[in-house]
Amino acid sequence: MDIGAYIEGIAKKAKEASVGLRGVIPEVKNNALEAISNSLRKEKKKIKEANIIDYEKGKKKGLGEAFLDRLLLTDERIENMINSVIEIRALEDPVGKVIAVRRPQGFILEKVRVPIGVVAVIYESRPNVTVDAASLCLKSSNACILRGGSESLESNKMLVQIIQDALDQSGLGKGSVQYVERAAHEGVKHLVKQEGLVDLVIPRGGESLTRIVTEEAMVPVIKHYKGVCHLFVDADADLNMAVRVVQNAKVQRPGTCNALETLLVHSDIKAKLLPMIREALEGVELRGCSETKEILPDIEKASEDDYYKEYLELILAIKVVASVDEAISHIEQYGSSHTDGIISGNIHNIQKFTDTVDSAVVTVNASTRLSDGGVFGLGAEIGISTDKLHARGPMGIGELVTYKWIVRGDGHIR
Amino acid sequence: MDIGAYIEGIAKKAKEASVGLRGVIPEVKNNALEAISNSLRKEKKKIKEANIIDYEKGKKKGLGEAFLDRLLLTDERIENMINSVIEIRALEDPVGKVIAVRRPQGFILEKVRVPIGVVAVIYESRPNVTVDAASLCLKSSNACILRGGSESLESNKMLVQIIQDALDQSGLGKGSVQYVERAAHEGVKHLVKQEGLVDLVIPRGGESLTRIVTEEAMVPVIKHYKGVCHLFVDADADLNMAVRVVQNAKVQRPGTCNALETLLVHSDIKAKLLPMIREALEGVELRGCSETKEILPDIEKASEDDYYKEYLELILAIKVVASVDEAISHIEQYGSSHTDGIISGNIHNIQKFTDTVDSAVVTVNASTRLSDGGVFGLGAEIGISTDKLHARGPMGIGELVTYKWIVRGDGHIR
Repeated sequence: MDIGAYIEGIAKKAKEASVGLRGVIPEVKNNALEAISNSLRKEKKKIKEANIIDYEKGKKKGLGEAFLDRLLLTDERIENMINSVIEIRALEDPVGKVIAVRRPQGFILEKVRVPIGVVAVIYESRPNVTVDAASLCLKSSNACILRGGSESLESNKMLVQIIQDALDQSGLGKGSVQYVERAAHEGVKHLVKQEGLVDLVIPRGGESLTRIVTEEAMVPVIKHYKGVCHLFVDADADLNMAVRVVQNAKVQRPGTCNALETLLVHSDIKAKLLPMIREALEGVELRGCSETKEILPDIEKASEDDYYKEYLELILAIKVVASVDEAISHIEQYGSSHTDGIISGNIHNIQKFTDTVDSAVVTVNASTRLSDGGVFGLGAEIGISTDKLHARGPMGIGELVTYKWIVRGDGHIR
Repeated sequence: MDIGAYIEGIAKKAKEASVGLRGVIPEVKNNALEAISNSLRKEKKKIKEANIIDYEKGKKKGLGEAFLDRLLLTDERIENMINSVIEIRALEDPVGKVIAVRRPQGFILEKVRVPIGVVAVIYESRPNVTVDAASLCLKSSNACILRGGSESLESNKMLVQIIQDALDQSGLGKGSVQYVERAAHEGVKHLVKQEGLVDLVIPRGGESLTRIVTEEAMVPVIKHYKGVCHLFVDADADLNMAVRVVQNAKVQRPGTCNALETLLVHSDIKAKLLPMIREALEGVELRGCSETKEILPDIEKASEDDYYKEYLELILAIKVVASVDEAISHIEQYGSSHTDGIISGNIHNIQKFTDTVDSAVVTVNASTRLSDGGVFGLGAEIGISTDKLHARGPMGIGELVTYKWIVRGDGHIR
C-alpha cells in the first residue's frame, strides 16, 4: 500500500470513530480511561522492553544526552503517565455543556459544546505525549491520530497497542486512537491534507516541524513557533521581587517555551537593578545593549539578532528602555506573542501594558514560567497556541471542543 | 508600485491601526460609528452617483438582472445600510469582557476578550457588505481590509472614503478601514499571504472564490463553501407543520445558503406526506428517489449528484429513508455541515438527531431559514462558518474577538 492510501485509511477509520464518539456518555469515556490506566500499570514491563529498544538504537545513533533522557521511560515516569490519565479522567467533561440559551422569536436557541472530531497530534520523541494526547482527546470525545518522533517508534507502538486494547474492552473502537507507524515525513505531509477527515492538526515540537506542517496543511493547524518571552522591569518595580521573578523565569527550566529570553529594564533603575541581576543569575550568559554595557561592561554585546532568539539555554538578552511604551514596542517587534510580562508598582503602566501587549499570556509581577496548562488549572496540556483564533496560550480539554447551535421550535418559520 | 508591495503597504497600515485600536474605549468607537452613519446620510447623493457609474457599466457588460439588482443602491437601501450601522453601534461591546477568573496558586488569572487584529473580508458586488463589515470590525476593535467584486468598485471606493473621513474626524486613523482598489484576483492572492499582518480572512461569496482563498491562504480563513441543507420528516411528525416548515425553508428565499435543498421523508408517512408537499410547493421542481417516484410518478428522478447540490433555486431533491439513522447517515455523507433539521414528535429521535448530526446549526421542528445572525439576535453577520474551529454558523461581533490570559501576581514564581 502506498503511503497516501495508508494515511487515508487511518484518517477514514478515525472519522468513523469520531462519529461514534459524538453521542457517547461521560461514564463510557471515564471507564475507558480507567481501563487505560489499569492496563498501563499491568503492562509496565512490556512498555519498558519496547522503550529500551528505542533507547539502545538512539544511543548507537549517537543521539545527545538530553534527547535520550526525554526518550527514556523509567518506572517513575510510567507512573507519572498513569497519574496523568487518572487526572484527565477526573476533569469535568467538556462536551454537551450548554454555553448559551436564548429565545429569539419564540424558539429556543442553544449553543452546545461538541467535540472537534478528528485531531492529529505530531510531536517529538517523548512517549509520555502519546498517552497524554490520547487521553485528552478521548476525554473530549475526539478521535486522534498520533505521530511521535521516529526514535520513539517502538515505545509508542506499544503504548498505543495497550490503549487500543483497553478501548476495545470498553466498547469504544480502536479507531479512536491510532498511530502513524510508517514514513514519518511523507506520512505527516499526507496527514495534514486530509480535508473532510482530519479536523485539526496540532504540531508540538521544534519550529522547523511546525513550519513544515503549517506550509503543507490543508486543514486547520493550531500551533506556536517559539516562545521569545520578555519581562519588563519598570522604574518603580520592587527590585527584590524583580530579581526573584527574573531569576525564576530564566533559570528554573531554561529549555521550555515559557522561559525568559529578553529582559527589558527601565533606564531609571538600570544602575541599581543590573548588578543585582548579574549576581542572582550567576552562570547565565548575559548579552546587553550599549546602555546595559555601561553598567555591566564585561558582558557580551547583544546583536539585533539576539533579540529575536529563543535561546532555550542559560543566555539572557538585556535591553534598557526609556519607558513602558518603548518596552511595548520592543515586544511588538521582537516578540512571539507567547508570554510577556511587566514588573511594576505603577498601576497606570500595568494597565497600559496589559491592554496593549498582544500576547497569548500577559503576566504582571509574576514569572513567565506560570504560563502553563497545569499551573492554570486546565489539566494536562495538548499544546500551546500563539495563534489568534480558537485557542490562545495553554490548551487543555476545554480547547479541544467547539460548539454547535440547536434551534428548538414548534413549527417556527421565517 | 507592483501589486505585492501595494497589498503589503495596506496590510502594514492595517496592522498599525489595529495596535491603536487595542486600548480604545467603547465611547470612541461608538462616536466613530455615529459619525459614519451621519456622513452616509449626508453624502447619499455622492453614493448614488458613484453607484450609478457601476450600474451603467454593469448593464453595458450585460450582467444579469439579479446581479444588477444586488449592485443597485436606492434611497431605501442606503437607509437600510445606515440603520445597520446604528444597530451595530447599539450592540454590547464585545472587547474587554472578562470571561473567566480563577486564583490558581494564589495569583489572579483572567481570561479577557480582545480583538483579533486585522480582518480581511472578501465579498461579491454587494456594496452594503462594505458598510456592514467595516462597522462590525470597528465595533469589535479590529482593523479591516475590504475587497468587494470589481463591478462595485466605484460604489465601494465612495463608501470607504466616507467611512475614512468619519474615522479621521473621530480621531481613529484611516488605516482602520481600507479598501483594495487594485487588481482583484492578484490582490486577493497577495492579501491572504500576509502572515503576521493579517490575522483572519473571511471570504463571503461563491464556492469558487472561497476555494481560491482557502488554497492560497497562509493566514487563517473562516468560511463556508455551500449550504446543502436538509430537513428530515420523521414517522410521527405533525404533517401539517412539516409541510409549512418545508415550504418556508425551500420557497421563502431559495437563493440563500440556509434554504432547503434536500427533503428526507420517513417511509411510514411517504404516502401521506409526499402529495401534500407537492401541493404546497407548487412551482418547485421536485426530484425524487425511486420510492418517492412510486408516490409521485411524474416527477424527475434524482441522480446521485442531485443530493450533493446546492440548487439555490426552486428545485428540491427528495429521498425516502427507513429511519432516523438512515437520515443521519445521508446528511453525514451528502451534507455541508451548514444547517440540517428534524421534524418529529418523537423525543428519542430528536435527541439522537441533535446529538449526532454534526452541523453548525441543527434545527428541531423549525425552518432552516432561521439559521441567521439577525434571527439569532447576534446583530448583523460578518459571515457564516461551516468550519469546526473558533466560530460555527452565523458569525457576529462576538466571533470577531479572541481572548488573552492575564496573570496578576505579587512576585509569584514557579
